[in-house]
Amino acid sequence: MLTQDKTQQRKWKPIIKLFEAIVGKRGVVQRKEELLVYECDGLTSYRQRPALVVLPRSTEEVAEAVKICDRHNLPWVARGAGTGLSGGALPVEDCVLIVTALMRKILNVDLENQRVVVQPGVINNWVTQTVSGAGFYYAPDPSSQIICSIGGNVAENSGGVHCLKYGVTTNHVLGLKIVTPEGEIVEIGGQVPEMPGYDLTGLFVGSEGTLGIATEITLRILKAPEHICVLLADFPTIEAAGAAVSDIIGAGIIPGGMEIMDNLSINAVEDVVNTGLYPRDAGAILLVEVDGLEVEVAENKQRIAEICKTNGSRNITIESEPEKRLKIWKGRKAAFAAAGHVSPDYYVQDGVIPRTQMAYVLKEIEALSDKYGYRIANVFHAGDGNLHPLILYDNSVEGALEVVEEIGGEILKICVKVGGSLSGEHGIGSDKSCYMPEMFNETDLDTMKWVREVFNSKGLANPGKLFPTPRTCGESAKVQNVKQFEGAEVF
Amino acid sequence: MLTQDKTQQRKWKPIIKLFEAIVGKRGVVQRKEELLVYECDGLTSYRQRPALVVLPRSTEEVAEAVKICDRHNLPWVARGAGTGLSGGALPVEDCVLIVTALMRKILNVDLENQRVVVQPGVINNWVTQTVSGAGFYYAPDPSSQIICSIGGNVAENSGGVHCLKYGVTTNHVLGLKIVTPEGEIVEIGGQVPEMPGYDLTGLFVGSEGTLGIATEITLRILKAPEHICVLLADFPTIEAAGAAVSDIIGAGIIPGGMEIMDNLSINAVEDVVNTGLYPRDAGAILLVEVDGLEVEVAENKQRIAEICKTNGSRNITIESEPEKRLKIWKGRKAAFAAAGHVSPDYYVQDGVIPRTQMAYVLKEIEALSDKYGYRIANVFHAGDGNLHPLILYDNSVEGALEVVEEIGGEILKICVKVGGSLSGEHGIGSDKSCYMPEMFNETDLDTMKWVREVFNSKGLANPGKLFPTPRTCGESAKVQNVKQFEGAEVF
Repeated sequence: MLTQDKTQQRKWKPIIKLFEAIVGKRGVVQRKEELLVYECDGLTSYRQRPALVVLPRSTEEVAEAVKICDRHNLPWVARGAGTGLSGGALPVEDCVLIVTALMRKILNVDLENQRVVVQPGVINNWVTQTVSGAGFYYAPDPSSQIICSIGGNVAENSGGVHCLKYGVTTNHVLGLKIVTPEGEIVEIGGQVPEMPGYDLTGLFVGSEGTLGIATEITLRILKAPEHICVLLADFPTIEAAGAAVSDIIGAGIIPGGMEIMDNLSINAVEDVVNTGLYPRDAGAILLVEVDGLEVEVAENKQRIAEICKTNGSRNITIESEPEKRLKIWKGRKAAFAAAGHVSPDYYVQDGVIPRTQMAYVLKEIEALSDKYGYRIANVFHAGDGNLHPLILYDNSVEGALEVVEEIGGEILKICVKVGGSLSGEHGIGSDKSCYMPEMFNETDLDTMKWVREVFNSKGLANPGKLFPTPRTCGESAKVQNVKQFEGAEVF
Repeated sequence: MLTQDKTQQRKWKPIIKLFEAIVGKRGVVQRKEELLVYECDGLTSYRQRPALVVLPRSTEEVAEAVKICDRHNLPWVARGAGTGLSGGALPVEDCVLIVTALMRKILNVDLENQRVVVQPGVINNWVTQTVSGAGFYYAPDPSSQIICSIGGNVAENSGGVHCLKYGVTTNHVLGLKIVTPEGEIVEIGGQVPEMPGYDLTGLFVGSEGTLGIATEITLRILKAPEHICVLLADFPTIEAAGAAVSDIIGAGIIPGGMEIMDNLSINAVEDVVNTGLYPRDAGAILLVEVDGLEVEVAENKQRIAEICKTNGSRNITIESEPEKRLKIWKGRKAAFAAAGHVSPDYYVQDGVIPRTQMAYVLKEIEALSDKYGYRIANVFHAGDGNLHPLILYDNSVEGALEVVEEIGGEILKICVKVGGSLSGEHGIGSDKSCYMPEMFNETDLDTMKWVREVFNSKGLANPGKLFPTPRTCGESAKVQNVKQFEGAEVF
């Protein structure tokens, strides 16, 4: 009798040959030990090995690979750099993982019209690097920007520190070449922002791999600001920092970025990065980046400093020199990693609230921390109300993850209750699909599913993501094959 | 034997009763002479009388009215204020026109979170009027802003002078309550900008009434800038003005608005409005509005003035006082109307080009003017490459309209050829649907049609708009009933 592995191998052999004919032998990963790294994305708490990995190099190769999946009813999942935090690129059982890691060409740079065309595997930061010499940059800047890919940013509609002023990924994508789940190549959007017809580009950005895969992405680049400065202000309480944020926005100032870190985060960061800049006794710190003309920055930083003082800030550090600015930001950028140092594991949540609800929601999070007995660090994009509570836990303690997920779910419910959202920038993925009914009623979700149906009628593209399936929430990330794949030809 | 009118009346009588049961007798317009004003929108060259007009007052009334249309297979067209320029609200034969003129409530004003919820019939300018006392405004400002409705703005994704810096309607709509063509009420988007799932709000904005009708619209309002000034610079040629625009953007300045008017427009405006400010001998003038902090405006206006001088400007007027600013803008705002005074009729085209192609495209437009022997005035949103050529003609001359439409079509083809777009802000409507294949291939259009199919499966919502039907272009605006309505129950 054959072992289970052997049976699997026999089943997949003819399929692998088909893929090899398109991307070559080196473009297909099938050995168990090599597949290990593809078992999860940045949401490491759930893992599922794909049946195989395919690495195409061009739009045409992607289209051919997707056609094989379509023809043989194979579920498939697209993956960029695998840094996503909502499990959007988590494989499903017996799926083909289409990885864009070899599609790393910058196809066109048009400085005059301020746009760059890239393949999806291009790393976020490369775009800015490519155009920075000429005084341009690409605005969306997730914390993972030195390793995450533009394709993944498009799928999850990624944000970042500077999205308060400049908008998230969808505001910077002019057009796309996509491969639909049927393997058709379609161009949507264009080179100019104004396009007639339905805004399919906007529809596609943030669709988390359920409508197809982007193979060419036209990005808008911005002129780098003349001057930048960063303010670091401490506050006795997180509420006081929040009040300062409201007053800054209320004064009509839109800073490049506005971040709050609470006492727990400050100390975690100082333990690990040792910036020496973040006062360990502060209830919270506020980081504000101001950009624009030198005169404008000069005036705004004065006004912001005054607002911070009025709200109880004792010390305000202001830096303009690039190196000193980076030093201030270093702690914030390392906040998630620092949480991993002060606790064996951490779970990062991503929710949005109206700014006016900040004090209330933070109190509720504190209450949850007390109730469940888990420490929760708060680091967030304060300007746009995008919270990132970090729940610290130990995964080796049985049942801990389940409790942490419950806390995460409670936080999301509070966000939705006050008129906010389930996700600011990390996406729904497999992690939060079960919470979608908190935010949308059945008619709303049906409407979205109808749209999915148009592109992804067989449900083969990233099954089980984004939308709730009839499972309990605790199982949310353990994505199982759905019924329709039972009849897949090769099995 | 009954007259045709009598036969019609008999056919519609039971249907009218159904509508009257929902919106009352006064909510249904059916008398021939009263229907006259609903025969066309701002694109006055084509007219079609609707069978009847229904004026609902609430989401529920709209839903019930749409359900009647769905049940009885009646084509229906939504209409706001009827100021659209692409014939998006042009009735089709035997259709029900659903007019939102009585839905004029501002439902909620939330200054703290900077949002306003309105019914679709609310006039664009009212939003700013409502919040201006508290220092806020609504950014999208079509020329028609004192008469056009927010619902129409949503349908056509309207722009305006200030959309260069602040974006078009889609960038300012946070969420919508819509009635689908099946009469279902669906909420899409929300109160915060970040929403998970598919961006159906973005999909709906600009869908020109083909996906349903928006009945509640949540708008984002902005803090009014501290300081505003307007520069008026003259140039020897339109190319020189265009070069100044490129240099301003290239210098990293994004003005609130940037408008070019050519010599023909200048003289038309001076003939009619007599501002005394626009030099009649200039090849072109450039109007630039700069907003922000006082120090920022002060520096930017200096830099812009220098750039204009470098590009050959002789005289530059700069005004900050509100009244003087308005005086400078008055001529630009009256440009379309002025064209109507210097010529019996005019046709306004709306196309977009990459800024770098401006000189080439303007030369091509000039060549078309020479070739066909029609004067073409150029007034445009120069910053974002949104051209508005005004073709002057006399509709009483037989065949003139056809020639003008041909010229308009040629202009659009040039826009698309250089990588631009068929419409910047007026929409496709019935006027330009036949040019969609210039911009999109069959697969692209099919993808859009699949999406339409999801919402509008019977094709009853605004039939014949946005997408090309198999007709020649000359007939584009003469929308006829399409086959599927032949079986409509009531006929």
